[in-house]
Amino acid sequence: MNTFGNIFKISIFGESHGNGIGIVVDGCPAGINISANDFTEDLARRKAGKKGTTPRKEDDLPELLSGVFNGKTTGAPIAILFRNNNTKSKDYSQLFDHPRPGHADFVARLKYGGYNDFTGGGHFSGRITLGLVAAGVIAKKMLAPMKFEANILEAGGMTDIDKAIEIAQEKKDSIGGIVECKITNIPVGLGEPFFGSVESAISSAVFSIPAVKGIEFGAGFKVAKMSGTENNDNIIDSKGTTETNNAGGINGGITNGNDIVFRIAVKPTPSVSLPQETFNIKDGKVEPLEIVGRHDLCIALRVPPVLEAAAAIALADLSLIAQSVKRVF
Amino acid sequence: MNTFGNIFKISIFGESHGNGIGIVVDGCPAGINISANDFTEDLARRKAGKKGTTPRKEDDLPELLSGVFNGKTTGAPIAILFRNNNTKSKDYSQLFDHPRPGHADFVARLKYGGYNDFTGGGHFSGRITLGLVAAGVIAKKMLAPMKFEANILEAGGMTDIDKAIEIAQEKKDSIGGIVECKITNIPVGLGEPFFGSVESAISSAVFSIPAVKGIEFGAGFKVAKMSGTENNDNIIDSKGTTETNNAGGINGGITNGNDIVFRIAVKPTPSVSLPQETFNIKDGKVEPLEIVGRHDLCIALRVPPVLEAAAAIALADLSLIAQSVKRVF
Amino acid sequence: MNTFGNIFKISIFGESHGNGIGIVVDGCPAGINISANDFTEDLARRKAGKKGTTPRKEDDLPELLSGVFNGKTTGAPIAILFRNNNTKSKDYSQLFDHPRPGHADFVARLKYGGYNDFTGGGHFSGRITLGLVAAGVIAKKMLAPMKFEANILEAGGMTDIDKAIEIAQEKKDSIGGIVECKITNIPVGLGEPFFGSVESAISSAVFSIPAVKGIEFGAGFKVAKMSGTENNDNIIDSKGTTETNNAGGINGGITNGNDIVFRIAVKPTPSVSLPQETFNIKDGKVEPLEIVGRHDLCIALRVPPVLEAAAAIALADLSLIAQSVKRVF
Amino acid sequence: MNTFGNIFKISIFGESHGNGIGIVVDGCPAGINISANDFTEDLARRKAGKKGTTPRKEDDLPELLSGVFNGKTTGAPIAILFRNNNTKSKDYSQLFDHPRPGHADFVARLKYGGYNDFTGGGHFSGRITLGLVAAGVIAKKMLAPMKFEANILEAGGMTDIDKAIEIAQEKKDSIGGIVECKITNIPVGLGEPFFGSVESAISSAVFSIPAVKGIEFGAGFKVAKMSGTENNDNIIDSKGTTETNNAGGINGGITNGNDIVFRIAVKPTPSVSLPQETFNIKDGKVEPLEIVGRHDLCIALRVPPVLEAAAAIALADLSLIAQSVKRVF
Repeated sequence: MNTFGNIFKISIFGESHGNGIGIVVDGCPAGINISANDFTEDLARRKAGKKGTTPRKEDDLPELLSGVFNGKTTGAPIAILFRNNNTKSKDYSQLFDHPRPGHADFVARLKYGGYNDFTGGGHFSGRITLGLVAAGVIAKKMLAPMKFEANILEAGGMTDIDKAIEIAQEKKDSIGGIVECKITNIPVGLGEPFFGSVESAISSAVFSIPAVKGIEFGAGFKVAKMSGTENNDNIIDSKGTTETNNAGGINGGITNGNDIVFRIAVKPTPSVSLPQETFNIKDGKVEPLEIVGRHDLCIALRVPPVLEAAAAIALADLSLIAQSVKRVF
Repeated sequence: MNTFGNIFKISIFGESHGNGIGIVVDGCPAGINISANDFTEDLARRKAGKKGTTPRKEDDLPELLSGVFNGKTTGAPIAILFRNNNTKSKDYSQLFDHPRPGHADFVARLKYGGYNDFTGGGHFSGRITLGLVAAGVIAKKMLAPMKFEANILEAGGMTDIDKAIEIAQEKKDSIGGIVECKITNIPVGLGEPFFGSVESAISSAVFSIPAVKGIEFGAGFKVAKMSGTENNDNIIDSKGTTETNNAGGINGGITNGNDIVFRIAVKPTPSVSLPQETFNIKDGKVEPLEIVGRHDLCIALRVPPVLEAAAAIALADLSLIAQSVKRVF
Repeated sequence: MNTFGNIFKISIFGESHGNGIGIVVDGCPAGINISANDFTEDLARRKAGKKGTTPRKEDDLPELLSGVFNGKTTGAPIAILFRNNNTKSKDYSQLFDHPRPGHADFVARLKYGGYNDFTGGGHFSGRITLGLVAAGVIAKKMLAPMKFEANILEAGGMTDIDKAIEIAQEKKDSIGGIVECKITNIPVGLGEPFFGSVESAISSAVFSIPAVKGIEFGAGFKVAKMSGTENNDNIIDSKGTTETNNAGGINGGITNGNDIVFRIAVKPTPSVSLPQETFNIKDGKVEPLEIVGRHDLCIALRVPPVLEAAAAIALADLSLIAQSVKRVF
Repeated sequence: MNTFGNIFKISIFGESHGNGIGIVVDGCPAGINISANDFTEDLARRKAGKKGTTPRKEDDLPELLSGVFNGKTTGAPIAILFRNNNTKSKDYSQLFDHPRPGHADFVARLKYGGYNDFTGGGHFSGRITLGLVAAGVIAKKMLAPMKFEANILEAGGMTDIDKAIEIAQEKKDSIGGIVECKITNIPVGLGEPFFGSVESAISSAVFSIPAVKGIEFGAGFKVAKMSGTENNDNIIDSKGTTETNNAGGINGGITNGNDIVFRIAVKPTPSVSLPQETFNIKDGKVEPLEIVGRHDLCIALRVPPVLEAAAAIALADLSLIAQSVKRVF
């Protein structure tokens, strides 16, 4: 199930150390301006290189294989390809028999009978999100003037994130974080009952991002402690503006015109330098595992553009669905 | 988008005060024992009548219209119908012009040009989840010996839930809650990369349940404050049993054989007896709204069987998908 | 796979001798006038009772369970139920062990491990097309002013169809036929590359109708004998009107604004009164089979409204898809 | 709608004169042997170069971008890319304003507001079928020992096909043809009621192939002239072998274990050297159009491997679906 969407449909492919990584975007309307430059900013935000991210360096230059002609989308599928260059597959060979805790190594081996590409995490690598970001760029252009902005709120339990990274580096451990996404300029009426709620679509896309373990909309888990009168967002004008925004811009699964706001919990990168006591399949017993290879210390740092992309893709699809059944009454 | 699933596909229909509510379950294997009695327990758990729930009483007797023959599924679609009996549509007429805060009234009116059935919340009513519970019963039977158990952990911020209800009743307000679902006897290998992760499938189904505003798996939002060595679940045997279960039974989107554990935040019922200051479309100004009609004070109380059903439906689909591509290696 | 469509999505259920037969139509826009009367004409055209059709009589009264409010569609799923009344299940018990040639009896038994409802053909009965016709009525209303008209061109190789029926009655045999469907007032631009061609969508829906063994668009099989200059339809005005219509209104899988024209081949009803030499599973040998029960002599006679419905459903979906990605350039 | 399939899901992309053409195959089981050599035969059969085919020469070398590791499928999506090398885009510029009869030029311009890539037919080019053939190779390997064999039965109305080509070359015209596909070693039970019939799935895939205007299964259009006793295929043994095969191996939409046989009608290539009188959008009047560029004289010659691929892809999906709901009774 490497496809997502009903009308704005994406199909993702690639492995961390394979020939390339990419995505096909089907169902994008014709006539939208797209150039290679449009991808630069979001891809750069996702890129490694900052403190706390992996030393693996990739150019991440997108090649537009199809679907764009004279600088505009044609209505045909847009295929985008990224080449993998900086691969070091030797690092991973031991992990096939001694699967890393917190990773997909163990389940992938069983699910695919050992035929999965395990180098660099294979198809389970966070590197696959490159394609997601690329598709997100197209979704955002299609959805303009909607605007997506994700930021990391805290890492390792601290709001001073530089400090948190330093502490983790000292401990040779990794840390998790919380990322918030806010989307503005939302029309009323996106989202479909029953299974096409905005929360369903966004969460479904967002949980595809490796390392996400929780999501909450608006006041989120706080609603469990609130009363109805505290939580209800009173409407104050004919456009549906609400006094508060505990609903995170969504009622009955449908956008109410207020900002969509949601937060996710990102777990600490499971690959840490410290040795871990975990089962070795070949040896048939628990043994210390020391992970070499290049890894992010706080993957949450790189998540914001990926999160925006996931949300944009989900909303692009809901937007086209809403348009499909619209009648002028 | 009132359908869900790829192979185990459900299609839901009905309005709160219409002729009936139901669901069609397609893709269920033939030869599974099903009788009307199988639905009794989960439907009873979902039913109103307990303290803190709506005074509306419905028999909620399922009629099996198709797909079951001589007490066993036939492989053809299973259609299940519930009649609405105890409807009082007069109560709702004013809400069309004076939409309730926290409800879908406002967005539904705009989205459907005023043609939506607004009586009793229409298709947005929590009553629609009857169909979900019925489909969940079938999914559970198909998935046996997997076992689903959801419980309310707290309401209104308190673990003494009776007490919480009493306080809310005194205040004439409603309260939210947290519900946890634990699923046991899970095989390794359910869930698909990239968009078919277990978290994606479950969250997508779960956010269809009205009033859910957050979901977290395993350690959930706590992972954001954890280090990698704290969060990683070390594997201790060849079956993949882990020492801890911070992952909630899911790695890389795929079941690892340990229990699936997740929690949801349920908001307080938006319909409260206290007057609320909110926009009246007809009058063009903010006015006090007093909601009559029959409502739950703490909808979270009725959510557990619905949550189990949503999870079972999602896993039934993933289970059939996993079987479809399985080869004996 | 009892569902069809991407946006205008239908889900069909029921067995010939079960509690009921029906369909759920999801994705229909709100605000379309629908009353029970709208179904009368097409259901009557499909009904048995004419010379050459089965003596089984059913009222075929549709009950609108949901999705219609104050005489208009609400935007929520429209569920329609037909009850089975005139069932005689005893007639069919022998066929489980002695499967009828030309029917699904043998394959259904193997596919479903014998758990399929075999009475009256179960879910494979032509009676299931009742639901299709009902959904077709809704699709046609949505697509107006498009107009659908299907007619039987020949039966048993003769254009005098009354005569053909009489001959077959004398021989106690059944006969096949050819049915043509013409659709007028078509906008340019329905249909999607690559797999969403109009021919793909219509043929996919049409081959769901039991007994259809061939379909051809425009000049159809004759194109194989034509040259390019004979077959090409020259365009004569800015609206895309063509001199000839060998393409049947479709170029590159997309409507060109001219009439859509296609024909289907309908096989003779496999249930005939004459004895047939075919394998008896219980006895383990070929034996004469005499089929009792009530059957159509020429099922093609009842196909026209079903064919229109299948085409209308396919075009309703393509129409909403085309609208979804439309931009005003 | 450039995707096809429920479990064995393909996503096609590319334009005739763009950067590349390709396909992503999702849902293929892990552990199937795949090498670049596996594609050679079918791609060569599809290639131009024979008498009656286009002078455009392309290497058509597939690059496996993902999903194959150590010579075996991994269970992750398989992306395959073909580069376009021999493109001459200047030839096509006039056709934007003076659309070719029988082509998608006119409808594509209107549908996509003129933003479609019209060079070489863009996304509507027969060249896109390269991707289909590549996916077909994978489907065939997965389905072995099923065997696919398609052949051209007649061209321009003649069975001596060399002769037919010569005549057409002299007339500077193009010709159509009939292609038959036979599939052997079929298990009983592929295909799903109601909309997932084998005929529905195959026809839906086959009508994606440009130039196909008709399809018939088994006795096809002849059934319309047959009686039930003539048409019925009597079963002669416990495996379901039938005396005759008028059903083309399919009853009730489900394979009965006998060979699947179907035929398609392929229209003559619309691009002919002779001038055609057709509407010029820019000039606003009917004018003679002379088509330059390189074209097939009888596209049917290149269709057999494409037809096999379409059928294999459809059956691969039905095969995985059948496996998904299979229980050992």
